[in-house]
Amino acid sequence: MYIDPPLLVLDLTGTFAFGLNGALTAVRATRLDLIGVVTLGMVTALGGGIIRDLCIGATPPATFRDWRYFALAVAGALIAFVLSKWLDRLEMPIIVFDAIGLSVFAVIGTVKAAEFELGIAPALLLGVVTAVGGGTIRDMMVMQIPTVLRSELYALPALVAAAVTIITIHFGVYGVPAALGAAAACFVIRMLGVRYGLNLPGPPGDGRRWGSANADPDASGPADRQ
Amino acid sequence: MYIDPPLLVLDLTGTFAFGLNGALTAVRATRLDLIGVVTLGMVTALGGGIIRDLCIGATPPATFRDWRYFALAVAGALIAFVLSKWLDRLEMPIIVFDAIGLSVFAVIGTVKAAEFELGIAPALLLGVVTAVGGGTIRDMMVMQIPTVLRSELYALPALVAAAVTIITIHFGVYGVPAALGAAAACFVIRMLGVRYGLNLPGPPGDGRRWGSANADPDASGPADRQ
Amino acid sequence: MYIDPPLLVLDLTGTFAFGLNGALTAVRATRLDLIGVVTLGMVTALGGGIIRDLCIGATPPATFRDWRYFALAVAGALIAFVLSKWLDRLEMPIIVFDAIGLSVFAVIGTVKAAEFELGIAPALLLGVVTAVGGGTIRDMMVMQIPTVLRSELYALPALVAAAVTIITIHFGVYGVPAALGAAAACFVIRMLGVRYGLNLPGPPGDGRRWGSANADPDASGPADRQ
Repeated sequence: MYIDPPLLVLDLTGTFAFGLNGALTAVRATRLDLIGVVTLGMVTALGGGIIRDLCIGATPPATFRDWRYFALAVAGALIAFVLSKWLDRLEMPIIVFDAIGLSVFAVIGTVKAAEFELGIAPALLLGVVTAVGGGTIRDMMVMQIPTVLRSELYALPALVAAAVTIITIHFGVYGVPAALGAAAACFVIRMLGVRYGLNLPGPPGDGRRWGSANADPDASGPADRQ
Repeated sequence: MYIDPPLLVLDLTGTFAFGLNGALTAVRATRLDLIGVVTLGMVTALGGGIIRDLCIGATPPATFRDWRYFALAVAGALIAFVLSKWLDRLEMPIIVFDAIGLSVFAVIGTVKAAEFELGIAPALLLGVVTAVGGGTIRDMMVMQIPTVLRSELYALPALVAAAVTIITIHFGVYGVPAALGAAAACFVIRMLGVRYGLNLPGPPGDGRRWGSANADPDASGPADRQ
Repeated sequence: MYIDPPLLVLDLTGTFAFGLNGALTAVRATRLDLIGVVTLGMVTALGGGIIRDLCIGATPPATFRDWRYFALAVAGALIAFVLSKWLDRLEMPIIVFDAIGLSVFAVIGTVKAAEFELGIAPALLLGVVTAVGGGTIRDMMVMQIPTVLRSELYALPALVAAAVTIITIHFGVYGVPAALGAAAACFVIRMLGVRYGLNLPGPPGDGRRWGSANADPDASGPADRQ
């Protein structure tokens, strides 16, 4: 009811990508068992949308009204669990799936917030919250400082996607092409940030301060490497 | 209004057990002071139900409408605070109270979700979320990877209880005996998992990776020991 | 609609103070970059009020209905980011801004809960949750055990402010003077606790157990020093 069928496909794609990402993060960060992996996949995939729906008063959240979100989050997590055994290094898939989910959810979250006529700033804020919310809970559950705090080019591309979405809605040109364009802009900015190390512009010599709670270097940030 | 008086007793029992558990966890993990102990008891006892009620749109949550939840959570926490001084080792009480809360809340959460006609998968999901939600926030607040991620036989028994509940509702045989049976099944599976070490099926040599954020070995996982 | 203009000023003051506090915490604890600093400022300033509004069913939360909350949180965070370069030691400003936000939000949260006629205990609870909620999420995001768990004189002064507010409402003498008095009482108790080290009454020899997840001593508790 909130989004067109093509955008529903986009939303479900983001859910699937975040399910993959959360599960791979679980495998990589702490080698959780099957249920731990699926749980972290579901939290990552469904967390942002649930926070958004609670904030706009759309209860029960879409996650609980449409079984496909649930199914795709679990499917992504299970696929990641199986495939993880054949993947030597998980960094890049983790980052790419995260960037896909981030990009798609920033657009969808903004559209849903705009339909509730919350004003521009709240719609932007909710778009970004939808995009980064699931990953933030994911990071906190595995005892890592959330990517949204550590990486300048994480919230920023989500904000760009949200802004493009709001502008195209305002000028009446919002549609599938605009949504895909906004998501693509976010994805490209995020990946450029990762590629060129733009995601760690902190003060010099502070690199180690981003360290995770776990002393094992393998268990550090899921999305701050190349 | 949502649950029969006998089930209300069950719900309040779970609240009391989680209040005890959260407070003992606080004492054991970080030796918090009185208010810290009561706070962690309340978070553990009330967190899962609040998340569930927010998700089904039942605001204000039952916790805020019925003072008995509040009173029993605080009472459990205070009793635990006093008794903790006489308990040499707190592991087993922590695990048992946690398992009681887990079992009861899985059933009650599923019943409430089913009454909102959310469908089977969402009802199961909300039952599990109700069961593990408070403990997850508890663990995150004391900087530990949540039990639900670390222990295979934690979400699983909650899911079993939720499934038994849904099936008995579906066949019209749900009632106090069914609720008690579902909760008992969850409790037995969880305790068997703890007893036989089934709760740590991670890859070999990874035992130390479950370590908590705190280097103090005393402060590690509240529910993964015997 | 919920609070008089003078109290709205008080609410916005608390939002601004928490925005400053969250941003300074980010700079001090982990030297996050600009977006990380603003994000933590917003989480600290808006988190407590959002939790309260979700619990009383006032969706969308005031944060999303009134752009001034959003603007003041961001403004506070930006000012703190700029000023932090000239501040050698950030402890005292962090503590003072936190205490201001705590005091004001305890009063405002209680008033809003009371207007939803939730009863005395829930109103007190929601007042305290409003006061400590944002800071608790702040601490969890930077991997620190929340102040509300560590410091006896943190939840307690908030509870005092909430109780004074409820009592003055009950006797029909609530108004701006009462609100300011309740907030001042909270502020004074909190600062006395900090001044005289009353905020760490844990068992002897346990000082190091409050340590944060980060081994860097600079990164420990944001509000437990003088």
